[in-house]
Amino acid sequence: MSLLELQPMAEKLFSDVRELTFDGVGVTRQSYGRGESDTADYLRAFAASEGLEVKPDRAANLVFGLPGTASVSAVTWTGSHIDSVPQGGNFDGYAGVVAGLLCLVAQKASGRSYDRPLEVVAFRGEESAWFGKAYMGSGALLGKISESDLSLKQRTTGESMETCMRRCGADVDAIRTQQLLLDKVRIKAYIELHIEQGPVMVARKLPLAVVSGIRGNVRHNRVVCHGDAQHSGVVPRWLRHDAMFAVADLIMRIDEHWRVLLERGTDLVVTTGIVSTDPVEHSISRIPGQVSFSLEARSKSTDTLEAFYQLMRAECAAIERERGVRFEFDGRMLSEPATMDGEICGVLANACTAQDAAFEVIPSGAGHDASLFANAGIPSGMLFVRNQNGSHNPHEAMEIDDFMLGVRAMDVAFMQLK
Amino acid sequence: MSLLELQPMAEKLFSDVRELTFDGVGVTRQSYGRGESDTADYLRAFAASEGLEVKPDRAANLVFGLPGTASVSAVTWTGSHIDSVPQGGNFDGYAGVVAGLLCLVAQKASGRSYDRPLEVVAFRGEESAWFGKAYMGSGALLGKISESDLSLKQRTTGESMETCMRRCGADVDAIRTQQLLLDKVRIKAYIELHIEQGPVMVARKLPLAVVSGIRGNVRHNRVVCHGDAQHSGVVPRWLRHDAMFAVADLIMRIDEHWRVLLERGTDLVVTTGIVSTDPVEHSISRIPGQVSFSLEARSKSTDTLEAFYQLMRAECAAIERERGVRFEFDGRMLSEPATMDGEICGVLANACTAQDAAFEVIPSGAGHDASLFANAGIPSGMLFVRNQNGSHNPHEAMEIDDFMLGVRAMDVAFMQLK
Repeated sequence: MSLLELQPMAEKLFSDVRELTFDGVGVTRQSYGRGESDTADYLRAFAASEGLEVKPDRAANLVFGLPGTASVSAVTWTGSHIDSVPQGGNFDGYAGVVAGLLCLVAQKASGRSYDRPLEVVAFRGEESAWFGKAYMGSGALLGKISESDLSLKQRTTGESMETCMRRCGADVDAIRTQQLLLDKVRIKAYIELHIEQGPVMVARKLPLAVVSGIRGNVRHNRVVCHGDAQHSGVVPRWLRHDAMFAVADLIMRIDEHWRVLLERGTDLVVTTGIVSTDPVEHSISRIPGQVSFSLEARSKSTDTLEAFYQLMRAECAAIERERGVRFEFDGRMLSEPATMDGEICGVLANACTAQDAAFEVIPSGAGHDASLFANAGIPSGMLFVRNQNGSHNPHEAMEIDDFMLGVRAMDVAFMQLK
Repeated sequence: MSLLELQPMAEKLFSDVRELTFDGVGVTRQSYGRGESDTADYLRAFAASEGLEVKPDRAANLVFGLPGTASVSAVTWTGSHIDSVPQGGNFDGYAGVVAGLLCLVAQKASGRSYDRPLEVVAFRGEESAWFGKAYMGSGALLGKISESDLSLKQRTTGESMETCMRRCGADVDAIRTQQLLLDKVRIKAYIELHIEQGPVMVARKLPLAVVSGIRGNVRHNRVVCHGDAQHSGVVPRWLRHDAMFAVADLIMRIDEHWRVLLERGTDLVVTTGIVSTDPVEHSISRIPGQVSFSLEARSKSTDTLEAFYQLMRAECAAIERERGVRFEFDGRMLSEPATMDGEICGVLANACTAQDAAFEVIPSGAGHDASLFANAGIPSGMLFVRNQNGSHNPHEAMEIDDFMLGVRAMDVAFMQLK
């Protein structure tokens, strides 16, 4: 059986899980929560029906393989994550898991085998949307989840990461010690297929792309600007300590620094994804006394992240003096940028060429589990598949032909790895 | 019995109602809701125990008087409102009702009587915090509540103003027709005692002040800026349509216009009391696709309000072009500025002088029910009492000595009115 014949299976894997996790607008697969676990259960049943082996690792991610693979001493890993942002799209993460599973199914059906056996991982907890922390599933395996991470609260239920992880079967006591929970020596390479989440490939008419590197980021989940809540009608301008005007001032200063840094050729994007006056006390006729907001900068360069961060803090200090407000920061989160392995990039490029697929080598603006593997010293690579309408929204629209082209390229790449 | 002897009664009226409506932080007296109705019930029982008459008017406000006053053909009205903002202070509004009631109790006890009998009104629904509409109780009496106002939703319960008014006993069918629901000819004057809600009197060491006029305002309860929600890592700066950066840009342009207008000597304050990214879909790693905010400008001059409003709309149009976003406005609300009656101001000034109280004549930055009476052609006046820590927050701190001085001045003023 060739991979081409598996297109109907791919379509069913996508439509079943979309239906399972549809929220009325997009899909919602909570990290260590319902939508993600429903997807895991579905894939477990799928694996059983196809004669694949599946077992959870110590961080409650699922690892799939052909029977007997668990005992071999050298494997290639592929896969991605099965959670999503709230009201997100069906392909972000999940497509990489489906791609790996199709390769396993094709191997099983045809009796052929890669020289180096393949395992497919379905990570939990990649999205920062739920706990304000990304790469929880891969991070837990690689000793990157700290005690304070485990106490982060889920955005809607308020439950701690520890509680949610434990309920899914993760070995939280081991995770807390930040030890390695996987055999790094056994995993010779990690290759992830993922939809592109930006507009580049659509604009350049590229069905596939080989990823050269992955942007890192620096984040605060919650900064609080404290001003002075007062009746809006009675305090003249020079006596106001308006937390919202102060935050708007900060955002516009950031916007200006960003513009200048781009003109110098630096790689940077900046986002304040969550901003809110205090819902308990805000009103039309009250000067906001408190505004909370998130702050994120992404770059390929750690130096740029650090320089921008210091600029931002300096502007906060200036605004504090000028407007009589106070900024209060929660813990700073840093995800290091990562470089993909040159040899694996070459293998992926050859595989694209073998499919007659137009492709380019491009950087990834979004973060991926692959960055943790690369930074842990495991040779890593990524293949992007074209996707319309961006990502982290319900309108993701990967075409199945592009996806199957990507799966065949992954299959060719896996054949080359020895 | 002199008014001075009633200080313990005043203290009890304040502490009882504070306890009744304490929310753990401040007081919460929902317009046409629980805290306001609990206060009304308390005052009804108080009136009965003191031998005062009390009856609701057709808008569910309470009107108190000495027995027999309801049938006389010319009265003075005093009073204020009994609702509060969420987590507000105990004196905003309520102090004016207590002042009036103390005057009635003193009359009843001493057997003396003003030449023109006094009625005390306890208005419901003065605060815009609950339905996005101010002066609902006085407005309903004066035919200023429209069909569309009645469909506004309560901020927490989502119930319509109509539902909440009807539950309190208001004649909503009459209110809807926007007819006069009080006998304007019978009310010869409306005089309101209220705490100052700004810092002027504390700064100038004035226990009392006579109000010359009341600022009007122009408002939108909810403007929505629509951008394009996308993954925060993958969209470069020039392709972003970030609703939050657009709103920050608008606020900073407003801030600059405000500064310039003040330098030209105009009277203006501007507030965006409520600002929020969309809680259903916002996340740290998503470019905000939607931000909602309230907008309020206040001025003594209708022309200034109109000029500022047009500037603001022009900036929105410019930002729409520059940032590829769209602003969507709900219905514009306009409250006209009001001028207090010269003769009544003179009577109040004489009354202050008679108490040996330091006072000045100052404008009111905040809005008050008195503005509706003035604009309806009823001669109106206001007496401010000094108050620490501003208002619309839990830290209001009127001193009882200042309050009792105000009550005695009101009593002297009522004696002068014939």
